[in-house]
Amino acid sequence: MDNSSDFDKLANLQRPHKDMINIMPLQTGSILTAAARRALVEFGDGYSVCDFCQGRLAGIANPPVNKFVEQMLPEFLGCDHAVLTYGARDGIFMVLHAMTKPGDVVVVDANRHYSTAVAAERAGIELVPVPRSGHPDYIVDVEAYAELIRERKPAVVLLTYPDGKYGNLADAARVGEIAEAAGVPYLINGAYAVGRMPVRMDALHADFLVGSGHKSMASAGPSGVLGLKTKWRDVVLRLSAESKKKEVECLGCTLRGVPLATLMASFPEVSARVQRWDEQVAKAQRFSAAMEQMGFSQLGEKPHRHDLMAFETPGFYEISQRVRERGYFLYKELKERGIWGVQPGQTRALKMSTFAATTEELDTVLCAFRDILAKYS
Amino acid sequence: MDNSSDFDKLANLQRPHKDMINIMPLQTGSILTAAARRALVEFGDGYSVCDFCQGRLAGIANPPVNKFVEQMLPEFLGCDHAVLTYGARDGIFMVLHAMTKPGDVVVVDANRHYSTAVAAERAGIELVPVPRSGHPDYIVDVEAYAELIRERKPAVVLLTYPDGKYGNLADAARVGEIAEAAGVPYLINGAYAVGRMPVRMDALHADFLVGSGHKSMASAGPSGVLGLKTKWRDVVLRLSAESKKKEVECLGCTLRGVPLATLMASFPEVSARVQRWDEQVAKAQRFSAAMEQMGFSQLGEKPHRHDLMAFETPGFYEISQRVRERGYFLYKELKERGIWGVQPGQTRALKMSTFAATTEELDTVLCAFRDILAKYS
Repeated sequence: MDNSSDFDKLANLQRPHKDMINIMPLQTGSILTAAARRALVEFGDGYSVCDFCQGRLAGIANPPVNKFVEQMLPEFLGCDHAVLTYGARDGIFMVLHAMTKPGDVVVVDANRHYSTAVAAERAGIELVPVPRSGHPDYIVDVEAYAELIRERKPAVVLLTYPDGKYGNLADAARVGEIAEAAGVPYLINGAYAVGRMPVRMDALHADFLVGSGHKSMASAGPSGVLGLKTKWRDVVLRLSAESKKKEVECLGCTLRGVPLATLMASFPEVSARVQRWDEQVAKAQRFSAAMEQMGFSQLGEKPHRHDLMAFETPGFYEISQRVRERGYFLYKELKERGIWGVQPGQTRALKMSTFAATTEELDTVLCAFRDILAKYS
Repeated sequence: MDNSSDFDKLANLQRPHKDMINIMPLQTGSILTAAARRALVEFGDGYSVCDFCQGRLAGIANPPVNKFVEQMLPEFLGCDHAVLTYGARDGIFMVLHAMTKPGDVVVVDANRHYSTAVAAERAGIELVPVPRSGHPDYIVDVEAYAELIRERKPAVVLLTYPDGKYGNLADAARVGEIAEAAGVPYLINGAYAVGRMPVRMDALHADFLVGSGHKSMASAGPSGVLGLKTKWRDVVLRLSAESKKKEVECLGCTLRGVPLATLMASFPEVSARVQRWDEQVAKAQRFSAAMEQMGFSQLGEKPHRHDLMAFETPGFYEISQRVRERGYFLYKELKERGIWGVQPGQTRALKMSTFAATTEELDTVLCAFRDILAKYS
């Protein structure tokens, strides 16, 4: 079989849009810092972070994984212990797998990520949703956790903070108070919070907090962090009977390579940027207001408190119904204008993030939307 | 708190030995190809491979993940279906978790990796070992699988091929015949085989084959592959009730970032290098013979058929007993000679791999060993 043409493609992989303005929610929080780009090249080879490993990933002193995991991350997350994971979903599965048995119930916000449901399926547990209000704001009334906890006696309660569809920030501290009063361990999925905005496990009365390196910590993926209270350490981070240096739920070691190097290299800048979160919120609100002036409606909480936003864009949908490219016209028009992140084909509602773009770049995006509407009107 | 000095370190992570001759078994198979180094820089950002995702990692057409996963990997592994994982251990856990229930038995070679035992603990199953001969060859008599299968009725049998301690290649095809005759699914841990040497799941009568990107496929980590037979697809790759595009045991998607790009970019060269495996075996045997001439004894099978080897080195141990640096003298002496991979402190027995070094570089290593012995004699 002649693979040469396919092989040529594999050996020359490229991202054509890499210098464009990026508004894709999945990507805006994980654009590498300059330090991470250097670490990427330095630690590209497999098992690169394991040069000086003595048998325990979190014990490695060079690069200083030990200080990062055992001191810096706990301080940053407001937790007692931290552990490296492949991502938020993997941290969630670790917690659910360790803290529940098949058939158990977990109470979870209706805005939870799909991967929470998949992790629950893998652990053999039932998710019971805390309802959300309907269109257009999709708000989870966190007081409803209390009744569901009484009724269903969950092994764990979980909140997605913020959710990945609307960027709504439910009252995570209130859920913590309710869970604490009921004596139920509380897990926060902070995939879109940790590394973007200030978030501390202790302040939110949580038992567990997961974050995502490749979503919000300026890191290559797969990478993530899990913070937890000391009281759960022997459950979730229980050591193997086989190897006393290895955690069972981590299968021994997790990030054996470059994503750990980028996570660490970006950490100083990530620590600093969460302190400037108010600027991000202002940028998001200004963008949302401009979008609404254009006739689009922002879904989710208003005023919005996160860079991740969804808009209903009937003007674009209407155009898609009468142009040759159908829904793809918008993707194409934006790409021509150097704007990346609207899914090809999407026009009815657009999910975007203002996190990575500057105010000037967001003006370019707004201008582009105006131009495109005008061009097809 | 003033983090500035720690932060400076994180922002300037370096690998001081990166241009040295590398004989560390963990690392010799995952030094990136030039193509992978380009892909690394191109796809460094988080979620970079997901630019054009329509909801299914293995369905992405740009970069051509779909062709890689659905066509190239199955051809390469000799399997019906392939799936991307975080590494060999993660593939093993996926299989064990899907194919067994807590309390089940898995029959496994006594040379299995520690992570196999940890994966079994996580899945709540019992490992029953097929014994190995003792010192110095540690050979697993694969015929013993038959009796243990009759006695213990395992849910799965597993073979480590080769093992990671001695580089012994047990008769994997014979285990396959035994398992097939007994109707027991058969999983091969090929972490040190896939990407180094020719290995095909079908030829070995196996049901599952796992490989490791960061051990043997010239890829950044964490990354791995799992090949399987069609008959197990609906068990191990069962789809989520929540999201019909997502596999439960993958928690939806696995390699959401740069390790997938390096795995793909190196694949053409990896495909080619396994065809030159006889050269690697010759290099290993020549190295082993020279080590034995120096008074060291190779452990494991002889003649050796893999680049991963362990040697008893009493001459170095004897020196360590009378020098100021104790066991660290050897690490230091080798480092000064530009040789990387012997664990600091090790002298009694050394594990090494001849895979990445050229014949000339291996001569440098042999010379260094001779020089060091002479220097301290």
